[in-house]
Amino acid sequence: MRYSRIPDEPIRRLPIYLRGLLLASEQGQKNISSNNLADFVGVYPWQIRKDFSYFGDFGTRGVGYNVGKLAKEIKKILKLNISQKAALVGVGNLGMAILAFPGFGIYGLDIAAAFDVNPKKIGRKINNLTIENFSKLGTIKKRKIKLAVMAIPRKAAQETADVLVKAGVRGILNFSPCYLVVPKKVKVITIDIAMDMARLPYYMPAS
Amino acid sequence: MRYSRIPDEPIRRLPIYLRGLLLASEQGQKNISSNNLADFVGVYPWQIRKDFSYFGDFGTRGVGYNVGKLAKEIKKILKLNISQKAALVGVGNLGMAILAFPGFGIYGLDIAAAFDVNPKKIGRKINNLTIENFSKLGTIKKRKIKLAVMAIPRKAAQETADVLVKAGVRGILNFSPCYLVVPKKVKVITIDIAMDMARLPYYMPAS
Repeated sequence: MRYSRIPDEPIRRLPIYLRGLLLASEQGQKNISSNNLADFVGVYPWQIRKDFSYFGDFGTRGVGYNVGKLAKEIKKILKLNISQKAALVGVGNLGMAILAFPGFGIYGLDIAAAFDVNPKKIGRKINNLTIENFSKLGTIKKRKIKLAVMAIPRKAAQETADVLVKAGVRGILNFSPCYLVVPKKVKVITIDIAMDMARLPYYMPAS
Repeated sequence: MRYSRIPDEPIRRLPIYLRGLLLASEQGQKNISSNNLADFVGVYPWQIRKDFSYFGDFGTRGVGYNVGKLAKEIKKILKLNISQKAALVGVGNLGMAILAFPGFGIYGLDIAAAFDVNPKKIGRKINNLTIENFSKLGTIKKRKIKLAVMAIPRKAAQETADVLVKAGVRGILNFSPCYLVVPKKVKVITIDIAMDMARLPYYMPAS
């Protein structure tokens, strides 16, 4: 089954639902209603039901959703049912935080390589991963790594993205505060921490 | 003027436009068309025009928008025209990256305090900021700090959010992979790095 005409917004929420389901599963729940799932994820029940309607009918009236089955289905839709290898570019403070982060595993994501330009860092071992020279970035092509996380300064971002695209990367998680120009076949998700924070004061009352 | 009925999505994009305008201004541009701004930010021109229509009419037909004036107006809408003080909770790798991050200043955001539980970190000075004992978090109330960045492990997140809310915080940027329960008057923006990355494989071609 292909789901090519689904808007970005439900796709954005699917990992949230998945996290909620994994949490519910941890607590021993076998079935879950949209109301109950809503409590886990902070999304309205009607929104949850609407989002799921894009992908088919997972629930049974009066019983709710089967937690394990629904989690499995969402993983399949997001292509997280196969383990995905990713390369980290930039092992500064943020890169270190990403390497140490326990959260990727539950989604089947595996940081399989890490690169930096700093000679002091190259060769260092972190969590069984040896930091490689940035000049070797092109080797990820042979290693079939299709995802990358860029945790580097803004001025190096576009150039690095170009190298990644050339090496066959199809998805980039970008922490540089800039818009990356890439071919259409490549998906970029940018996390601009300052920008997210810049949205907060809007919601605050005038003091 | 109040803008209380604007959906979240245009608000989410305003900081992107602001960044684009600041970039255009850096390059000496005085006026900018929606087509030109689109190139800076990667948002469709029609979307830009639609978003701006929520807030009033900033442009002149054939001339475009005045870069300086528009940037100022967006800052006002986002309440970034007044400097906003924020507290950082958790000075691990991610917290360090946040402290070192140069991007907050351009939005008028000021990390004015930092807290940690680790005795080895308390008292250390980073960028003129002395890391304080987590037990002193309540003192931000007196210091009129209304924003907080939480870069701490998930299991401490809800408890910390409760302390922040009690200390008068009205906006939280949360890096813990969990949903925080807070009163309605408090806005939480959660950045779940693993979850953002979990959206990437969906867009990738079957290999």
